Amino acid sequence: MTSTTRQLHLNAFVMSNGHHEAAWRHPDVQPSDALTLQHYVRIAQTAERGKLDSIFFADGVALPKNVAFNGHSAFEPLTLLAAIAAVTEHVGLIATASTTYNEPYHLARKFASLDHLSGGRAGWNIVTSAGQDEARNFNLDKRPDHSLRYERASEFLDVATALWDSWADDAVIADQASGVYADSEAISPIDHQGKHFQVRGPLNIRRPVQGYPLLVQAGSSESGKEFAARTAEAVFTAQQTLKEGQGFYRDLKSRLTTYGRSPDDLLVLPGISPIIGRTEAEAKEREAQLNGLINPAYGLAQLSSMLDTDLTHAALDEPLPDVGNATEGNQSRFDLVVGLARRESLTLRQLIERLAGGRGHRVIAGTPTQIADSIEEWFTEGAADGFNIMPPTLPGGLDDFVDLVVPELQRRELFRTEYTGRTLREHYGLPRPADRNSSNDKETAA
Amino acid sequence: MTSTTRQLHLNAFVMSNGHHEAAWRHPDVQPSDALTLQHYVRIAQTAERGKLDSIFFADGVALPKNVAFNGHSAFEPLTLLAAIAAVTEHVGLIATASTTYNEPYHLARKFASLDHLSGGRAGWNIVTSAGQDEARNFNLDKRPDHSLRYERASEFLDVATALWDSWADDAVIADQASGVYADSEAISPIDHQGKHFQVRGPLNIRRPVQGYPLLVQAGSSESGKEFAARTAEAVFTAQQTLKEGQGFYRDLKSRLTTYGRSPDDLLVLPGISPIIGRTEAEAKEREAQLNGLINPAYGLAQLSSMLDTDLTHAALDEPLPDVGNATEGNQSRFDLVVGLARRESLTLRQLIERLAGGRGHRVIAGTPTQIADSIEEWFTEGAADGFNIMPPTLPGGLDDFVDLVVPELQRRELFRTEYTGRTLREHYGLPRPADRNSSNDKETAA
Repeated sequence: MTSTTRQLHLNAFVMSNGHHEAAWRHPDVQPSDALTLQHYVRIAQTAERGKLDSIFFADGVALPKNVAFNGHSAFEPLTLLAAIAAVTEHVGLIATASTTYNEPYHLARKFASLDHLSGGRAGWNIVTSAGQDEARNFNLDKRPDHSLRYERASEFLDVATALWDSWADDAVIADQASGVYADSEAISPIDHQGKHFQVRGPLNIRRPVQGYPLLVQAGSSESGKEFAARTAEAVFTAQQTLKEGQGFYRDLKSRLTTYGRSPDDLLVLPGISPIIGRTEAEAKEREAQLNGLINPAYGLAQLSSMLDTDLTHAALDEPLPDVGNATEGNQSRFDLVVGLARRESLTLRQLIERLAGGRGHRVIAGTPTQIADSIEEWFTEGAADGFNIMPPTLPGGLDDFVDLVVPELQRRELFRTEYTGRTLREHYGLPRPADRNSSNDKETAA
Repeated sequence: MTSTTRQLHLNAFVMSNGHHEAAWRHPDVQPSDALTLQHYVRIAQTAERGKLDSIFFADGVALPKNVAFNGHSAFEPLTLLAAIAAVTEHVGLIATASTTYNEPYHLARKFASLDHLSGGRAGWNIVTSAGQDEARNFNLDKRPDHSLRYERASEFLDVATALWDSWADDAVIADQASGVYADSEAISPIDHQGKHFQVRGPLNIRRPVQGYPLLVQAGSSESGKEFAARTAEAVFTAQQTLKEGQGFYRDLKSRLTTYGRSPDDLLVLPGISPIIGRTEAEAKEREAQLNGLINPAYGLAQLSSMLDTDLTHAALDEPLPDVGNATEGNQSRFDLVVGLARRESLTLRQLIERLAGGRGHRVIAGTPTQIADSIEEWFTEGAADGFNIMPPTLPGGLDDFVDLVVPELQRRELFRTEYTGRTLREHYGLPRPADRNSSNDKETAA
């Protein structure tokens, strides 16, 4: 890599047999693969072969509805990524975990563990768990209010970062001769007393290799965007059109100054599900083949869940009926889905097909050149710093992206040909957070 | 393995640079190793080479006192064992996790994940977190009472096992042609409403390979022993003498019938820290070398913590002063330490040396034959079904055990020469729990 031009960042969003809702039924796919470690190891190693920045697992803490009709794996992401860490060297490892149903001491420690085990490759996709079913697995009758969840998330981050900083970087001395293992002055309790948490600390593992894991976020509500602007370093988002993508990008970047941050401190990565063919016709045929495997009953059930409206008996070949207004927690996805249906005058069947590929994320069926063109356009036209790649089938869809699209992006000098950094932060070009508890700083201050 | 005689079970208890408190200062040890994944992978692969049943990590959710003087690693065990799972094939993987500071949905899912990732090798050492410092990391001023912790643990197990059973073994169908992924009749909510937990379920991952992970316990209080008799399948314990070991073994096994269980349903594994030499003199010399590296100030601090009495200014060459009575939570370790000091009229310095090897677990310095003799004696004389091996230094101490003691045990036909099972339960000769939610059972009942 000799290019000094601005570089794309690519994350592989990994989900069971693939992102298309009928992926598990595709003849190239073996459904039982998604239940094995070997499947995910193969995918991670493919991502690494393609020099991708990272792989990522979404997560929820309840069984999704309609599992009867959809391939499913649900390994807990931190556990799965720790296993993957042992058999990969470069690729970043981003796990989703909820601030609503976890304790900061546990999560801070788990991410510190993953970061050390992987040599500095951990990332945390911070979610606040909007599902009602999730609340019912954690001693509640219903989910806490949106504002309360974000308030808790904010305090959770304060506690977690303080715990990561509770050991100075140079706290471990390990001098065998003198018998001094650690500098006890460089390990401090945090004595956090807040509305949601009371945590004494210090953490029982030293500061992560990266200082903090990479902090990722994906909420698109007002609170979500403010939370991202304050804390996140990468944001995953669903945007259907270049114009919408530009709007979101501008909006989010403009919020950073309020928090004393610069636009480069946060990367925006829209989702894209590339259906790749050697010719456009082949790509469209592959898309049609996948859509042909859709179970319409499942599509209606998913749509009902997205829009919080019972559409399970709606007529498939009629337009989307009146679905009222968004409810708390589904605003951005609601707007996206209803906007798409109205803008393009889609029937329910067509809408289901459009959503089947990426649940509202953008699907492009085309040649490697066409897909690279779209990536380049969004990247150069102010809609993206990189992309969240959502292969329609796995592992094949990622093989195709790495083998066919990545080389095209490399030819255009938009993407690395070798890893130049060692940590996930280095891949993303983001700084390592300074050590607020450094004993060196203390000496300087004294 | 053609022998049909009763077989020993051996677990490697893995702790940073080794179990001797001065291990990290030993010239054979590199302290920074304990901070790397590679160290633990090497140890796990050594255990596997020795055909050991399992490896095990203890855990607490607070930084131990006196970390300034003692090597420390504190990877979170489930995260670390998931990484190890990816690079081992046979050895069981036992993680400690607390029922006091976790939610059952999270832990049930993580252990199910580890069990699937490892092909059925997960074990859970269930602890109730007696430390005051742990409470202060989880929104409390002090630890919940002993009885309340065990009450919660008991309900926690009810919830966790119900969650593991919330998918019948045969719930996943994955029929590509018909588009039926799972049998929704075979996946059921648990609707648990109890004093400590309200959990709807079902779990979001299918039933573990082993049904449940192997359930392990190590408490020695009355409540601890009752809890073990009701739920545990293997128990780790600290016993200094054959007579004490026999008493504990008899006591625990006799409690099983109350819960409708047989003595074979629970295995007792006392701890043993073997300091191995080619001659007895070499072993004693190695023990003296390790004891010579003890920091007496650290020993006094540790003893103060074990006995809940400030001994940091006590005279090292005088007998143990009056330390009053045990407090809630330290009874069994208190009795063991005070009993040892009084029985053998030890000075504080001698007591510290006796505890430095294994914090109250039995230390044997001797030849491979002597160590095998002691193992055989306890095994055949009704004090043990196997042993929790606590190498004084790591990785060297486990190398010695596997290379020198294991072959001797194999020659005596007390220990396997090859793995004959695939899962941890198979290694321990314990049954797979029946599937209480099986759709086959339903059909039979209907």
